[in-house]
Amino acid sequence: MDKRPIGVFDSGLGGLTAVRELRRLLPGEDIVYFGDTGRVPYGGRSAETIIKYARQDVAFLRTFDLKAIVIACGTVSTTALDVLAAENPIPVLGVVAPAAAAAARSTKNGAIGLIGTQASIRSGAYERLIRAENPAARVLARPCPLFVPLVEDGRFRLGDVVIETVAEEYLAPLKQAGVDTLVLGCTHYPLLIDVIRACMGPGVTLINAGAEGAKAAAAALAAADALNDRQAGGRYRYFVSDRQEDFSRLASIFLGWDVTEAVGQVDIAAF
Amino acid sequence: MDKRPIGVFDSGLGGLTAVRELRRLLPGEDIVYFGDTGRVPYGGRSAETIIKYARQDVAFLRTFDLKAIVIACGTVSTTALDVLAAENPIPVLGVVAPAAAAAARSTKNGAIGLIGTQASIRSGAYERLIRAENPAARVLARPCPLFVPLVEDGRFRLGDVVIETVAEEYLAPLKQAGVDTLVLGCTHYPLLIDVIRACMGPGVTLINAGAEGAKAAAAALAAADALNDRQAGGRYRYFVSDRQEDFSRLASIFLGWDVTEAVGQVDIAAF
Repeated sequence: MDKRPIGVFDSGLGGLTAVRELRRLLPGEDIVYFGDTGRVPYGGRSAETIIKYARQDVAFLRTFDLKAIVIACGTVSTTALDVLAAENPIPVLGVVAPAAAAAARSTKNGAIGLIGTQASIRSGAYERLIRAENPAARVLARPCPLFVPLVEDGRFRLGDVVIETVAEEYLAPLKQAGVDTLVLGCTHYPLLIDVIRACMGPGVTLINAGAEGAKAAAAALAAADALNDRQAGGRYRYFVSDRQEDFSRLASIFLGWDVTEAVGQVDIAAF
Repeated sequence: MDKRPIGVFDSGLGGLTAVRELRRLLPGEDIVYFGDTGRVPYGGRSAETIIKYARQDVAFLRTFDLKAIVIACGTVSTTALDVLAAENPIPVLGVVAPAAAAAARSTKNGAIGLIGTQASIRSGAYERLIRAENPAARVLARPCPLFVPLVEDGRFRLGDVVIETVAEEYLAPLKQAGVDTLVLGCTHYPLLIDVIRACMGPGVTLINAGAEGAKAAAAALAAADALNDRQAGGRYRYFVSDRQEDFSRLASIFLGWDVTEAVGQVDIAAF
């Protein structure tokens, strides 16, 4: 048993979709969340910049006494997980390996689609891990650079011609290639699930990387006998690097519940 | 006469539209450009964060011996100009006052539209300066948070349903209000000029804040007898805070000429 909190971070608010899943699975766990809203988005930046930012995010979280850190960000998971895991004495868990494993298990025809940020696609991390599980799989990857700004602007609902047009454009080659499984490789994308499902049709299995990451983290903690013995009522603390004012309203959309806690502000470049 | 270069900065690449105008007016001037591509966009961030980032941008530029700094960014000009001007011994020039003056002069019916980032609109700076020039003017302001990500993604051309839909939505209230003048309050927006003109119709005068800022800077330098006596062939140096690879291709779109110079990378958080 380990009563220490779990640290969770993302470039912004998308990682809250993984927090939502963590609470569903482990309602008694305390969570410290950091969203780097002063430097979001990460997905178009260089690997070097992403690693630098991710190190600072972890350094801030580790000012708390944590039992594990969950990288609730596809971009950081693809680009900085190895570095962060090697540098930290507590487990650092990403979303890529669990999502890759779920996709490799799910596909029947061996054709797997992958969508993510430019940095995630460039890294090749999902492809490597999918092929490690299923060497016969073909992975068709498409960067979707406008999905994060559109989601953060609230344009994620069916019927919005802007998000529908952009989604059709990004997803058309994957549909044409006949993928039967699609990895949503960025933790912002679960908010687009209706739009993506309408595009891809009911025959395509969607893999939510944030939710798979949360499941794997819960399993790893259970296997290490590191769960909290509390069955419910975990405490949540939220920190951001830009202004706190908008956070509660936006975070509630990602979490699916109302955020009532105070939100802290962090000078992240000082870490 | 002053042969020192002019420093120019922006949150990213939009400021290059002002550099384009500066070169047209002052082809003999040397320019040092910094684009904070590692932290772009600024427009959705808090005033506190924008001021912090802008101070670092200026601190980097001032490692060169400059005769003036042009803030080629609507967001920084609205939010941090006073602070930067007070802290620096060389002239720091923004785009807001020149654009506001041009709009106040241009309007016939007194109804002026203003588009910009959320931070620019929130600051109220354009409205204050327009009313100082023309107390009878009515200013209708609309934040356009998706314009910068769409432009940086290359979606700025007429015929693209995504940019046209977003533009129609943002601009509809300004059209309905019958504005005869529209301030493009962000240096990314000149790339959208065809889309915006198609939306607003030929009767509306568009004011390009970056170009007005460049004109005012040229006039201020001339008035202070601080121009270079070279008539052409100014040297350009470019620096960014994220990877350099994409810069030349994207910068060429904003500048309207091919960038052949090497581009430097800056660890901007260290300034």
